[in-house]
Amino acid sequence: MVTDSAASPRGYAQPVIDVQALAQLLDGEYAEVRDLVRANLTTYADVLDEAEQLGFDEFRERVRELVVELAATGQTGMGFPEEYGGGGDIGASIAAFETLAFGDLSVLVKVGVQFGLFGGAILHLGTERHHRAYLPRLITGELMGCFAMTETGHGSNVQALGTLARYDAGSQEFVITTATDQARKDYIGNAARHAELAVVFAQLEVGGEQRGVHAFVVPVRVDGEVAPGVRIEDDGRKMGLNGVDNGRIWFDGVRVPREALLDRFAGVTPEGDYRSPIDNPDRRFFTMLGTLVQGRVSVAGGAVNASKVALAVATKYAERRRQFRAASDADEQVLLDYGMHQRRLLPLIARTYALHFAQDVVRTQLHEVFSGTGDDEHARRELEARAAGTKALGTWHATRTIQECREACGGAGYLAVNRFAALKADSDVFSTFEGDNHVLLQLVAKGLLTHHASEFENMDQLGMVRYVTGLAVETVIEKTSAHKLLERVRDLLPGGDEWDREAGLLDPEYQLAMLRFREEHMLAGVARRLKRGMDQDSDPGAVFSRVQDHVIAGAHAHVERLVLEAFADKVKEVPEGDDKVALKLLCDLFALSTIEADRAWFMEHGRLTAQRSKAIRREVTDLCRKVRPLATDLVDAWNIPPRLLRSPDLVG
Amino acid sequence: MVTDSAASPRGYAQPVIDVQALAQLLDGEYAEVRDLVRANLTTYADVLDEAEQLGFDEFRERVRELVVELAATGQTGMGFPEEYGGGGDIGASIAAFETLAFGDLSVLVKVGVQFGLFGGAILHLGTERHHRAYLPRLITGELMGCFAMTETGHGSNVQALGTLARYDAGSQEFVITTATDQARKDYIGNAARHAELAVVFAQLEVGGEQRGVHAFVVPVRVDGEVAPGVRIEDDGRKMGLNGVDNGRIWFDGVRVPREALLDRFAGVTPEGDYRSPIDNPDRRFFTMLGTLVQGRVSVAGGAVNASKVALAVATKYAERRRQFRAASDADEQVLLDYGMHQRRLLPLIARTYALHFAQDVVRTQLHEVFSGTGDDEHARRELEARAAGTKALGTWHATRTIQECREACGGAGYLAVNRFAALKADSDVFSTFEGDNHVLLQLVAKGLLTHHASEFENMDQLGMVRYVTGLAVETVIEKTSAHKLLERVRDLLPGGDEWDREAGLLDPEYQLAMLRFREEHMLAGVARRLKRGMDQDSDPGAVFSRVQDHVIAGAHAHVERLVLEAFADKVKEVPEGDDKVALKLLCDLFALSTIEADRAWFMEHGRLTAQRSKAIRREVTDLCRKVRPLATDLVDAWNIPPRLLRSPDLVG
Repeated sequence: MVTDSAASPRGYAQPVIDVQALAQLLDGEYAEVRDLVRANLTTYADVLDEAEQLGFDEFRERVRELVVELAATGQTGMGFPEEYGGGGDIGASIAAFETLAFGDLSVLVKVGVQFGLFGGAILHLGTERHHRAYLPRLITGELMGCFAMTETGHGSNVQALGTLARYDAGSQEFVITTATDQARKDYIGNAARHAELAVVFAQLEVGGEQRGVHAFVVPVRVDGEVAPGVRIEDDGRKMGLNGVDNGRIWFDGVRVPREALLDRFAGVTPEGDYRSPIDNPDRRFFTMLGTLVQGRVSVAGGAVNASKVALAVATKYAERRRQFRAASDADEQVLLDYGMHQRRLLPLIARTYALHFAQDVVRTQLHEVFSGTGDDEHARRELEARAAGTKALGTWHATRTIQECREACGGAGYLAVNRFAALKADSDVFSTFEGDNHVLLQLVAKGLLTHHASEFENMDQLGMVRYVTGLAVETVIEKTSAHKLLERVRDLLPGGDEWDREAGLLDPEYQLAMLRFREEHMLAGVARRLKRGMDQDSDPGAVFSRVQDHVIAGAHAHVERLVLEAFADKVKEVPEGDDKVALKLLCDLFALSTIEADRAWFMEHGRLTAQRSKAIRREVTDLCRKVRPLATDLVDAWNIPPRLLRSPDLVG
Repeated sequence: MVTDSAASPRGYAQPVIDVQALAQLLDGEYAEVRDLVRANLTTYADVLDEAEQLGFDEFRERVRELVVELAATGQTGMGFPEEYGGGGDIGASIAAFETLAFGDLSVLVKVGVQFGLFGGAILHLGTERHHRAYLPRLITGELMGCFAMTETGHGSNVQALGTLARYDAGSQEFVITTATDQARKDYIGNAARHAELAVVFAQLEVGGEQRGVHAFVVPVRVDGEVAPGVRIEDDGRKMGLNGVDNGRIWFDGVRVPREALLDRFAGVTPEGDYRSPIDNPDRRFFTMLGTLVQGRVSVAGGAVNASKVALAVATKYAERRRQFRAASDADEQVLLDYGMHQRRLLPLIARTYALHFAQDVVRTQLHEVFSGTGDDEHARRELEARAAGTKALGTWHATRTIQECREACGGAGYLAVNRFAALKADSDVFSTFEGDNHVLLQLVAKGLLTHHASEFENMDQLGMVRYVTGLAVETVIEKTSAHKLLERVRDLLPGGDEWDREAGLLDPEYQLAMLRFREEHMLAGVARRLKRGMDQDSDPGAVFSRVQDHVIAGAHAHVERLVLEAFADKVKEVPEGDDKVALKLLCDLFALSTIEADRAWFMEHGRLTAQRSKAIRREVTDLCRKVRPLATDLVDAWNIPPRLLRSPDLVG
């Protein structure tokens, strides 16, 4: 596009973005499957209207149909083995899912439930028998299923769930029972209407012994009727995602054959002997749960792409909408020429790019771990932490971005036709499902503080508090002592003790050193506070409660550092030229607006003077002015099919 | 309620709240009308279900019916003169509106459209002839009307709107015409279905001369059919408030009699002479617009009460929901015992109380100005600024609070039955309608910088930039020079030059001095930057664009100071006792969490050391622990009718 050179500061050579090239860079190795999804989204773009026009029941049926039609194009089965009709490419399946988030999010989530959660559980927790029995029909969408993990009484604390599965050696069956009303399965997608099968997570009891949580395949409907012993209730209307039929399930002594246990990590012999290749029960549990990681990576990518839709609409609107005169003899000024409007939208575009590249990293790691090219215990733990963290930051980003974009479009943003209504309502629960964001960040922190020590994989904070305050605390504190910390960041920068005062604000090493310092300092502080708390007070619950916001802040800082690294690495990789210049501007804007947002912390910890803090604010404003003429190209490079933007009066 | 003394820090005497007394304090002088509204809300509580169950058209009709039924109880007509069937008490009408926000917000907004905007325009812009003709029937809801100000092309910049009203002296009629498609009226509540009359804002042309924006009564429907020359289009589905029929209106040479001009501030004689008691056209315009202030005060109060509903549900849930074990041998811990959860909810409760008391102040001012007991030019300007500022802070607070509360209720918060879905979707547009929040804060800043100089009432930033950079700048800068500033705050505190270092964090004078310092320093900075910008660069648009975020931050700081003052004044007023202790805790929590949120700014400007900043963070955490046992009582004192909380599984 032609940019207005008058808008850029004097003496500065404005880069001109090659939108096509940048779009290719963003699509990366999965351009083909992304284009398939884009084509499908355009074909079925009417679903965005149908979401508003159809009744509650009709829309659910429409979304089911659409999921089956998408399955026929191959886009939703990319992650399953080819021998069962899948695409055999896990990375491609995530990329397809991410791209699907440009469209209606009920369709996205139903695809996630059917192929990610239900199909993923069969694939990763089951063995060949289960694969043969279910995969071919579930990949086509003929066999619909649900993933019955969450209970009303236990959301994020899966290990404590209350559904029971007792093995009856006499009949060689498991008997599944909902022990109390709090143990009913809840919010289960596909449960209210479409699921024939459920993968049910329950406490296994064999020969009177408790063996912890395991997964079972349980028929919940036969010929469209709810199966005997099963009770299903509709969760009813939700804030959004009303194309997905969420429901509650109770089991009253439902009997399933011995083979119904998904037995990749543990089985029961006909006689009732429990066998598992993993001895430690906590470790077994977290290995099973590890298969959830794919869902978290998927949601993270979906959230980033939902943010793109909001930003594309708001940016295009801000380029054409005029409001108030700028000078007495002039037209009214377009919104994006207002400093405040730049401040509102452009750092969000920068952060969206940053999260996009961070998502590339986590998707690649997932692909390597799950296709076995880079699968070891350490890689799995690192992947789980990164997936949890990216999911938390990505979904919060979506909530914040969609809200800001709606407000930036004023009253027009409130009309359903302009996409924000559905985007906002549908994406809201992303910060809760697949693991509540705060709980996920605690998980990240636990991994960092315990170095992913496998004997303490218990998600409970007790384990963490005890571990950290026990054996490991000296190591953690030593590793992260202020002295050592400074030494490490000093190595990165030539400034010696004054590294944080003399480095250029646009020096990527400076930016990274700041985020690294914050992360390590926070985590060391958490370790020290946990230890001090336990020394003074023997109740780990109270100790944890007091440190909890610090724990979460430390994990957040860690993930933000990973995101910046991903962005900075990508910028390095890009060949010289205007696109690199543009991406560097954007990366600077992300880094400095991130530091700016937490500048109080940096000042409190002696890493920013008041003067330098103000300089960072000025630099962010200046970067916004430099990015402003690139804004339309930056959102166009996301290549969102135009029909999906809708918003006829906003994007023109 | 019985509070858990184990939860409070040692050696601290926990106050016990008298919920009944606190509720009376909060309801204040309007307890009676508030109780009437509470009773009505309970009677019609089914509307919360109907909002989900009824179809698009049916729900609109249901809301209309309900508005008429509420009108019959007298609650919606409180603000109109008794001679026409009203209650003759403007303050009471606002209190009734605020209380109505505990219920369905479509009902609230339709009441606002009918009685506040439409009825308010007839009352305040019309003269006796109009009052006699319309008030009796509009007060009962028999005559529905709409307020046709906003246009597609002009949202917040009303002075630039494009609808034309040309006076035809031959026929003694005005001819109303939508000049371009951008001049269509848009988002007009009641327009799509129910309005018979519209108050239309249009550019008046008399004898070839442009006289600026004036308001006319125009029939838009006759016997239920759209009137000739009028075209109406439905705005269709919106993110929320779907019980309100918003629409677009075009006028094609619609003729209305000379008497259709609402002529309190300007009239046209039959011969076509324009007459107005206000000579300055800008001033006339802003006097007319000043009648909008009531809408802003209403929305501010409604937003604060919508926040209360969200907080009441989330607090009750956090008191009963257990998640994860706190100690190995204990039950799982309730959410509100987690430090992070306290940090998430309790400062929001404190801010809600603060805004409640700030709303009391602005409602009282409105009442005094509009019932003539305290009406002068200065009082009006002050009221307008305060109403604009409270509306901006109150509505942003609602958006943030409802979101945080939804997330704090996890997946359950996503189910429609638990209120957040409707609260969030319906209240979202509050930050936009009745004046976009950013534009309103600019208005506040303009008033502060120009001391409400009446000759520069133009809402355009040009006027402000020129004024500030011209004559007045020296005064502004002098008044707000760092030297003078410090002198003034020093007078308040005994600490001399070290006032900000030695005062106790819980000293109300310290807290206020900090907010005053910030406000004045920011505004002085804006004045200086505007002047410097104009000295270097003659384009006021560019100058303003660069300073805009600073302008808005200054206005925000000003309003926050007013809010703190309102809260601190109220605490002083309350008789000694536990309730006073509890309110002081809450006021401290509001003040210090407000300073904490902007502690970077205070450090950058030498008013907080790193050590003291950390001390404030610790104090906020400590205050949260002290407020935690009071949380349920604090939300119960809002006296929200239990049926309106719904959320059977959350509040139990």
